[in-house]
Amino acid sequence: MTITPVLLCGGSGTRLWPLSRKSYPKQFVKLLGDESLFQASAKRLTGEGFAPPLIVTGSDFRFIVTEQLAAAGIDPGAILIEPEGRNTAPAVLAAALWLEQSDPEALMLVAPSDHVIPDDDAFRVVVETGAAAAEAGRLVTFGITPDRAETGYGWLELKAAPEGPAEAMELLRFVEKPDAAAAQDMLEQGRFLWNAGIFLFKVSTILAAFRAHAPSLLEPVGAAVAQGKADLGFLRLDPEVWSEAENISIDYAVMEKADNISAVPFGAGWSDLGDWHAVWREMESDADGIATSGPATAIECTDTLLRSESGDMEVVGIGLKDTVVIALPDAVLVADATRTQDVKQAVALLKEKGAKQATAFPRDHRPWGWFETLALSDRFQVKRIVVHPGASLSLQSHHHRSEHWVVVQGTAKVTVDEVEKLLTENQSVYIPLGAVHRMENPGKVPMVLIEVQTGAYLGEDDIVRYEDIYARE
Amino acid sequence: MTITPVLLCGGSGTRLWPLSRKSYPKQFVKLLGDESLFQASAKRLTGEGFAPPLIVTGSDFRFIVTEQLAAAGIDPGAILIEPEGRNTAPAVLAAALWLEQSDPEALMLVAPSDHVIPDDDAFRVVVETGAAAAEAGRLVTFGITPDRAETGYGWLELKAAPEGPAEAMELLRFVEKPDAAAAQDMLEQGRFLWNAGIFLFKVSTILAAFRAHAPSLLEPVGAAVAQGKADLGFLRLDPEVWSEAENISIDYAVMEKADNISAVPFGAGWSDLGDWHAVWREMESDADGIATSGPATAIECTDTLLRSESGDMEVVGIGLKDTVVIALPDAVLVADATRTQDVKQAVALLKEKGAKQATAFPRDHRPWGWFETLALSDRFQVKRIVVHPGASLSLQSHHHRSEHWVVVQGTAKVTVDEVEKLLTENQSVYIPLGAVHRMENPGKVPMVLIEVQTGAYLGEDDIVRYEDIYARE
Repeated sequence: MTITPVLLCGGSGTRLWPLSRKSYPKQFVKLLGDESLFQASAKRLTGEGFAPPLIVTGSDFRFIVTEQLAAAGIDPGAILIEPEGRNTAPAVLAAALWLEQSDPEALMLVAPSDHVIPDDDAFRVVVETGAAAAEAGRLVTFGITPDRAETGYGWLELKAAPEGPAEAMELLRFVEKPDAAAAQDMLEQGRFLWNAGIFLFKVSTILAAFRAHAPSLLEPVGAAVAQGKADLGFLRLDPEVWSEAENISIDYAVMEKADNISAVPFGAGWSDLGDWHAVWREMESDADGIATSGPATAIECTDTLLRSESGDMEVVGIGLKDTVVIALPDAVLVADATRTQDVKQAVALLKEKGAKQATAFPRDHRPWGWFETLALSDRFQVKRIVVHPGASLSLQSHHHRSEHWVVVQGTAKVTVDEVEKLLTENQSVYIPLGAVHRMENPGKVPMVLIEVQTGAYLGEDDIVRYEDIYARE
Repeated sequence: MTITPVLLCGGSGTRLWPLSRKSYPKQFVKLLGDESLFQASAKRLTGEGFAPPLIVTGSDFRFIVTEQLAAAGIDPGAILIEPEGRNTAPAVLAAALWLEQSDPEALMLVAPSDHVIPDDDAFRVVVETGAAAAEAGRLVTFGITPDRAETGYGWLELKAAPEGPAEAMELLRFVEKPDAAAAQDMLEQGRFLWNAGIFLFKVSTILAAFRAHAPSLLEPVGAAVAQGKADLGFLRLDPEVWSEAENISIDYAVMEKADNISAVPFGAGWSDLGDWHAVWREMESDADGIATSGPATAIECTDTLLRSESGDMEVVGIGLKDTVVIALPDAVLVADATRTQDVKQAVALLKEKGAKQATAFPRDHRPWGWFETLALSDRFQVKRIVVHPGASLSLQSHHHRSEHWVVVQGTAKVTVDEVEKLLTENQSVYIPLGAVHRMENPGKVPMVLIEVQTGAYLGEDDIVRYEDIYARE
């Protein structure tokens, strides 16, 4: 019995701004420890009993996905690219239709990739429990044993309170996000779990459920998969028909209507890290409730989260109480801990005033690696460019700028007009305005290059592409 | 009647960290508006009735002083360099002895350079009032009309409460920093002023007072001035005898003992900007008590100071109350507003753990301009170097690093071993390891250069100096 993990990672939440931004959202960030949530989610579902994962993500994130999987040593089974986010129902359906091609009776485990489950082993135990029910034709959902009257989640109502080791139990209904009194009541009754959005079923079971409860999705999503274009190892779903699929969650489209649902309780720890308060809960705090990460110093604070997201940035809190401080070199958030849900509002305000920090990080991830601006002035710009081993930038030229390249790590293969040469650490080359040029990393280690641009216009859009192995225009 | 301003700017306070640091303290920082406190202090005492100022500062700050005076269009009369800080009495005595050489009957106005006095004209009016008393042989101090029961300052007790326009009044005594009750009592009595450390007297009057009340200072300070070495337009007091002068304030050494003191009340606004709370008081706040500077956004905050000290750094506060946030790209302070006096403690802690941010800014000011590190790695470093027109770095070589220089603004005259050449915007040169080299700015505008260093050791101390127009070793 092999389970195919289906990891949903198309989200671009802003509630953990400034560390999560549209260009590089929460699931890819190292929020806790040395791995991103996405990497931890993928690792959790590897090993005996698991097939390579199927990833569903957005076009902007496709190279982040491959980079992070490679770093984690995981080979994806396939990567489906959603042309735009249409919520979870179309994503799950696309995954099911894709898997049906090879095995209609395969088990698929659908999970968000931006949650934290500290105890992987405990989770794999309940997955085994759920797998038996899924094999028997049930739609299995994993519900979290609640430890507080949380109003921010949907809940699951069981027929009876779970007892003894986890087992698949009959689900009475899905409960919408409750008010405080209802949440308290459910917590006390003991028959209710949090809905974590984690599901396990056979491909054939969920397809039957879609046909029964959400038939209108079958045509557009089916066509988007069938007409999908294989592109550098990704399957890019057809954008036109995809856009006709209803924007709806799997809960609304299918789960709340189906009558063959089982729930398996999971009580070994889980968080959706939905805001900074939730992150703080998952971090280690001292006796005064102080949690820190990076070079951060708390002086006579209580119940305070201090995060410095750069090793070169000292953060100091003095006399703070119930406060959250998240500091990056280009953006700092300081919030009352009870107001961390309002971070969305802050991002909206920054967007309104045109601040690039609302959506973008200083590091710009590209298929070939990443770059960041070290200094920017009217007539010059300095960038650090990191190119993955074997990767190559497009063959290009610029109308308005010249460039000096100095290799500071690894080896670069550089093309300038008709000349091709290898540069190693401490060697440089000049790219005159208008010259057709390309930079590659033919080596086995990352290549780092300092680029000094001069010119009257230094925008990213001053680029004429002649060839690009990543099929960009 | 001409007054020589004597500006004391040797201080290196840490209470406004992270914006004030030992390497570039408060008086040189643009805390309010477009000028540093030092520049504003110097400008306040220029124009009709004022001679060029005499500056007393530390060796580390001498080029900051000349740079800031030049930018403000002020020619200093002289700059005395204290080999080490010995508090205000030796500094004032040295200034008096220096001025005595040209005119023993000159009036000198001694003022700190890190205070703010928003109304320059009103201040010059009371200076005129004081000048008459000083001419008549009085030691005049300017006292600030108090508007709160401040325990952080010393106070001045007058014989009677001032009435009508400011006049020189008889001073009964200096009052040490009081407790809250005593401060409240003094505030209510109306006969008390704050001691702002601003004095006006004839050179001969203060020298007589030193001879009468602090005779032991005369020998070491006199010798330090007499044996001082003229050095690039500065007078460097002799360090050996200077170190024998008692470390004592002018208040303790002279003022509290003298019987010829007059006080002139000044009520048009003053602050010593002694901590962030004081800075906030001087900034413009909205109806909710929110003051911001730089790209800072306050969402439902009250009584909160949000400062972003970089145009590239967005600071967001949500739901804060009585909070101070000061953000720089390398250091962030978040403090309860009632605890801003504890910033000193934070700096001490950072020093203990060896954080460079405790004392140094990313921008390193040198006699020829400044530099900052844009990127630093094990084997490479990228710097932005800005050289003033006419300035020149030392002729030097390195044992452990090679350098690539790319000029991005202005013109550089570059010497590499035997070869000298001019580089302009978009031109570069390579400095091999061991080569003897120099960089100069022969032009009329600042020259900006990007330096990319590679090597196994990149410390500032890997430098062999052959010639230096600033007499450094």
